[in-house]
Amino acid sequence: MGNPLKVGVFGLGSMGYGIAQSALRAGINTCGFDVAQAQVERFQADGGSKEKLADAVTSVDAVIIVVLNAAQTESVLFGEHGVVPSLKKGAVVLACATVPPEFARQMAKQCTEHGVHYLDSPISGGSVKAANGQLSIMASGTPAAFTAARPVLDAIAETVFELGDSAGAGSAMKAVNQLLAGVHIAAMAEAMTFGMTQGVSADKFLEIIPKCAGTSWMLENRAPHIAAGDYTPHSSVDIWPKDLGIVLDIAGQANFPAPIAAAALQQFAAASSAGYGGEDDAAVAKIYAESAGLTLPEPT
Amino acid sequence: MGNPLKVGVFGLGSMGYGIAQSALRAGINTCGFDVAQAQVERFQADGGSKEKLADAVTSVDAVIIVVLNAAQTESVLFGEHGVVPSLKKGAVVLACATVPPEFARQMAKQCTEHGVHYLDSPISGGSVKAANGQLSIMASGTPAAFTAARPVLDAIAETVFELGDSAGAGSAMKAVNQLLAGVHIAAMAEAMTFGMTQGVSADKFLEIIPKCAGTSWMLENRAPHIAAGDYTPHSSVDIWPKDLGIVLDIAGQANFPAPIAAAALQQFAAASSAGYGGEDDAAVAKIYAESAGLTLPEPT
Repeated sequence: MGNPLKVGVFGLGSMGYGIAQSALRAGINTCGFDVAQAQVERFQADGGSKEKLADAVTSVDAVIIVVLNAAQTESVLFGEHGVVPSLKKGAVVLACATVPPEFARQMAKQCTEHGVHYLDSPISGGSVKAANGQLSIMASGTPAAFTAARPVLDAIAETVFELGDSAGAGSAMKAVNQLLAGVHIAAMAEAMTFGMTQGVSADKFLEIIPKCAGTSWMLENRAPHIAAGDYTPHSSVDIWPKDLGIVLDIAGQANFPAPIAAAALQQFAAASSAGYGGEDDAAVAKIYAESAGLTLPEPT
Repeated sequence: MGNPLKVGVFGLGSMGYGIAQSALRAGINTCGFDVAQAQVERFQADGGSKEKLADAVTSVDAVIIVVLNAAQTESVLFGEHGVVPSLKKGAVVLACATVPPEFARQMAKQCTEHGVHYLDSPISGGSVKAANGQLSIMASGTPAAFTAARPVLDAIAETVFELGDSAGAGSAMKAVNQLLAGVHIAAMAEAMTFGMTQGVSADKFLEIIPKCAGTSWMLENRAPHIAAGDYTPHSSVDIWPKDLGIVLDIAGQANFPAPIAAAALQQFAAASSAGYGGEDDAAVAKIYAESAGLTLPEPT
């Protein structure tokens, strides 16, 4: 007997594709959907279900929404072709995009009205961990939502932080994490290029700073990209104007000034405007290098 | 036979006092000097030499300068009562303050003219590590300066990064590290208080974020102070307007814009202006809390 679970993954970008692969690997009957038909066909060739959306949606146990933002999440759930009204009672929505906590609470309320569980479940970890079923998920929702989502979480996540029994808490923690992660990437780029103006090479920076009080998880993960001159996007520059924008939006609604996050957002926005939006987010260093007339390391 | 080495430690603040204690513990004949006579007497009661400055200075093998900044360093070395002209040939100066790299190069040149070695040796690690002889030192200088300084380094440091054969490289790396460390402390405070506006408690922040991509060395070290409501100064707020000021000064001289460091400096300067300059640097969170009407955790 195969695994009886059936899920639909909406959004087959770098994160969603990896999540869908991890679900498949766990023996789950997985349907992948995306506006890019080529990605859908690629996933079907990888072993994904060939069932059409209209047929699949009435029988899936869970839908995993791995889109860019709140607007896309709402469109998938309740838009013109929104899936929630077609889901069976007791199905669960795992909403993985970074969204404002208040939006998560609204979506949960609307899902509940349709007899559908909603797990506020923003993800963290990057595309490699997504493909390996090793994501971190900052989850909150009703105990029933957790129970319904458990087999899916087991397939796609290494770590599930259970942050409370109502939607919103997961997204709040995700926003806190994104504030830090975005600032740390931009600060790494600022410090590394500042060092170059003072005779500190990228390689020397990489050798010393990870052993010092100035280190961060993001520094250790991203600084090697700059030292290697490799901007293959694991997570792209364009993530950050979006995620730090969400942070600043909800901060603003709470009358909370976040000047460091704002400064970091400016640098990512400048990198995006300069044409680096699709590159690895470490390419924010190019903005610093260009403004100071520095030459960054080339690929070897 | 006792250890034949004799050193003078100039500046018996929280870092200098610990360094002097570590030298004593290593069996070094250690003289401590400070403008605060009470600190000098305390150190003598702890086992420090009672020799007067004018007598000691002509016979010490090394002087360790643990003052606040470049101006105080220059005053100790070459001011009205500056020690360098009185040092014996072949003695070594260990200059531990955070100073601009160009200043370190100037001091080294002037010391060389007196036949005295100069080790550019900014320190990192905090007062506890200073007292335990476990500092990290970002050192650069001539091979002869390293050789002369070695027994002192062995007594006071756990890690000595050897960053090159001329003064300046150590201070450059220190500036890079301070940029990151200062930004990370302020970003931690920003994220933690932002989280409070979204229902993320200080304790929940501490439980989750150190396991996530948003973590940093400084976050893990300082966030517990806020969660505990304990602002006993291990390293004080007032360090940061100074050290980030040095970073921005030398960045400016290189026409390098450092907007994230500038934003962090503003927050520390605001904390200092508000009367928190002598508290632990995690007290920068109070600026965020006050501007957003939040109540930080009280001591339990």
